[in-house]
Amino acid sequence: SRNIRLAVIPGDGIGTEVVAEGLKVLEAVGTKIEPTHYDLGAARYHRTGETLPDSVLEELRGFDAILLGAIGDPSVPPGILERDLLLRLRFTFDHYVNLRPVKLFPGVETPLADTPAEDIDMIVVREGTEGLYAGTGGVMRRGTPHEIATQESLNTAHGVERVVRYAFEQAKSRPRKKLTLVHKTNVLSYAGDLWQRTVNRVAEEYPEVTTDYSHIDAASMFFVTQPERFDVIVTDNLFGDIITDLGAAIAGGIGLAASGNINPERTAPSMFEPVHGSAPDIAGQGKADPTATILSVAMLLDHLGLRDEAAKVEQAVADDIVERLAGWAGRTTHEIGDDITARVSG
Amino acid sequence: SRNIRLAVIPGDGIGTEVVAEGLKVLEAVGTKIEPTHYDLGAARYHRTGETLPDSVLEELRGFDAILLGAIGDPSVPPGILERDLLLRLRFTFDHYVNLRPVKLFPGVETPLADTPAEDIDMIVVREGTEGLYAGTGGVMRRGTPHEIATQESLNTAHGVERVVRYAFEQAKSRPRKKLTLVHKTNVLSYAGDLWQRTVNRVAEEYPEVTTDYSHIDAASMFFVTQPERFDVIVTDNLFGDIITDLGAAIAGGIGLAASGNINPERTAPSMFEPVHGSAPDIAGQGKADPTATILSVAMLLDHLGLRDEAAKVEQAVADDIVERLAGWAGRTTHEIGDDITARVSG
Ligand SMILES: CC(C)[C@H](C(=O)O)[C@@H](O)C(=O)O
Ligand SMILES: CC(C)[C@H](C(=O)O)[C@@H](O)C(=O)O
Repeated sequence: SRNIRLAVIPGDGIGTEVVAEGLKVLEAVGTKIEPTHYDLGAARYHRTGETLPDSVLEELRGFDAILLGAIGDPSVPPGILERDLLLRLRFTFDHYVNLRPVKLFPGVETPLADTPAEDIDMIVVREGTEGLYAGTGGVMRRGTPHEIATQESLNTAHGVERVVRYAFEQAKSRPRKKLTLVHKTNVLSYAGDLWQRTVNRVAEEYPEVTTDYSHIDAASMFFVTQPERFDVIVTDNLFGDIITDLGAAIAGGIGLAASGNINPERTAPSMFEPVHGSAPDIAGQGKADPTATILSVAMLLDHLGLRDEAAKVEQAVADDIVERLAGWAGRTTHEIGDDITARVSG
Repeated sequence: SRNIRLAVIPGDGIGTEVVAEGLKVLEAVGTKIEPTHYDLGAARYHRTGETLPDSVLEELRGFDAILLGAIGDPSVPPGILERDLLLRLRFTFDHYVNLRPVKLFPGVETPLADTPAEDIDMIVVREGTEGLYAGTGGVMRRGTPHEIATQESLNTAHGVERVVRYAFEQAKSRPRKKLTLVHKTNVLSYAGDLWQRTVNRVAEEYPEVTTDYSHIDAASMFFVTQPERFDVIVTDNLFGDIITDLGAAIAGGIGLAASGNINPERTAPSMFEPVHGSAPDIAGQGKADPTATILSVAMLLDHLGLRDEAAKVEQAVADDIVERLAGWAGRTTHEIGDDITARVSG
C-alpha cells in the first residue's frame, strides 16, 4: 500500500513538543508514513504576517490527514490565529464532526469522588462548522456609550442533519445505544427547534437507539454528578466546546483528551489534535503530557482504516497509564513518549 | 416601618412546596411581611392560555420584591413559560444582575474529591437582560432541507458596563478582591471585545481589584479542577447560565443554590428564586430540598436592607447543614423547613 501523506502542524507552545512524541509513536507502530511539516502559528505570523496563506491551504488539501499540536500565543491578539488558522482549517475542510471521546482510563484519577472508571465513557459529537463559530455579527458605535456588538449563531438543516446522522451511527455501534441531544431549546428557540426536530426525525430511522435531551446547563451539572447518564452526545459547536473541556476535566484532565476534526465524506483531509491548548506557561520545559496527542494519533490511524495500529496505540496508552500511577510526576514529555513508543514497538 | 409587600409566584412542580417553606422562614425571622400570591405557571396557562397578563405584570411592579419558586412543565412546549413568564419578568424589571453565590457550606458533600470547603467560595455575577437571551433570530424554509435557523446575541455598552461595575463593587467588598471575566473572546470576537474592553476600562477605577480572564471552556474545567481560582466572576447571560449550574453541582447540588435577579437601581422589584427548576419528577412528594429557596429568602432580606435577618437565616441554614449529615436522607421538604424555621425563631 502507498505511504500515508501526513501534514504536520506543530503550532505554538507545547504543540511542538507533543507532536514530536505523537510522530514517534506513529512511526514505531509500523505505518508507512510520509510527514511534511508546516510552520504555521504565532512565530510565522510575527515573521511574515501570514496565518494561513491560500497556497498552503490548497497544498494541505492534498494530504491524507493532518496532525495538529496547538494554536495560540499571548503575543498575538486573541482570535487571530484561532479564527484565521484553526477555524479556517476546520471550515474549509468541512470538518463537520468534531469527535471527542470522554473516557476515564482505569487507573487515572478523576477529580470526581466515588466515580468508578466505567461511569465515564462517552463520545461527544460536536458540530464543527456552524453555530456561533460562523463568526458573523458586528459592532456599531464602537467605544462609545452606545456601542452594540452582536454575534450570530447560524444553523442549517444541512449542517445539523449530517452531524446528527453521524451521531446516530456512533450510538448504534455502541453497547448502550443512547444518544443525548444537548442544547438550550427553551431559550435558543429557533436553533433549538431545528436541532430537536432533526433528532426526532432521524431517530425514526434508528429504532434501536434511545434518544434523550438535556439542556446545556443541566448537562454540565450531570457531567459532575451523574456522568453515567451519557453515552453519545450530539451538540452544537459552542456547547460542544464547553462540554468537552468539562469532559476532559472529569476524565483525568486535559493531558489525556484527544479529538478528531472529521470530514466523513473524505472530500478533504481530516485533522487530529489534542483538546488542550498551547499552554505557553509550560512550553519548552518538557512538562507537557503528550498522551492526548498520542491518543489523537490513534484516532487518525482509525480514520485511515488502520484499525489494528489504532488499537495497538490505544492499548499502549492504557498500559502506560496503569503503570504511571507509580512514577507519573517524574516523567518528561520525551519519557512518556518513549515509554509509549516502546510499548507499540514491542 | 411599613410592611414589606412581597409578590409570591410559587409556579410549577416543586415550586409550590419549596416556596411554602421559604415563607415560613421569612415569617419566623420576624419581618413584617405581607405576601400576595400569584398563580402564574403551567396550570394557569392550560386553564386560561395566559402566561403573564400585562395587568399582572403592572401589579407586580408595585411590590418591594418577588419570591419565585420554579417555572416549567413538560405539558407546555419548551420555551413558552420560560420566555413569556420568567424571562419576561427578568427583562421587564431590568434584572440585569443575576447574582448567584457558589459556596460550599462546611459539612456539605461536594462531588469533587479532596476539595476543602474554603476552596469553593465565589459569586457569579451573570448578566440577566441581554446576550442570546434577547430571543432575536429567526427561521427560514422551516422543515425543508434548506432550513436556516439563527439566534442573535445582543450586547450593548450600557448593558455590559452596568453589570461589570456591579461585579467590581462585589469584588472590592470581598477579602480576595479578584474579578474574572468569563467569555469566549477568541471566537465571539465582537461581543468578547466589548466585554473585555469594558472590564479593562472599569478596572482602572478599581486599582485594588485584581482582574483576570478565562475562556468559558477553560473556566468549566477549572470549576472542577481548581475552583479556588475564582472569587467573583462576571459573565454574559448564557455562559452564566451554564457555569452557575456547574457551580451548584460542585457546591453540593442544586438543592442548595440560591439566586437573586436584581435591579440595583430599584426602579422595579428584584426577584429571588432557587437556581433549580420545577423538577416535575419529584413534585408533590415532599422530597424537594427547600434550602435553595430559603437561601434565596436570605438574599431577598439582604437586598431589602434587613441584614441581621438575612444573616440569621443564613446561619440557620449553615447550622442545619452541619446537623443534617446525620439524618439528611430522612427529612421531607416540610421537616427541613421546620428545622430551619425553629432555628431562626430561637
Ligand atoms: C482555540 C479555540 C478556537 C478552540 C475552539 O473553541 O473550538 C478550542 O477551544 C477547541 O476546543 O478546540
Ligand atoms: C429556565 C431557564 C430559562 C433559566 C435560564 O436559562 O436562565 C434557568 O436555567 C436559570 O438558570 O434560571
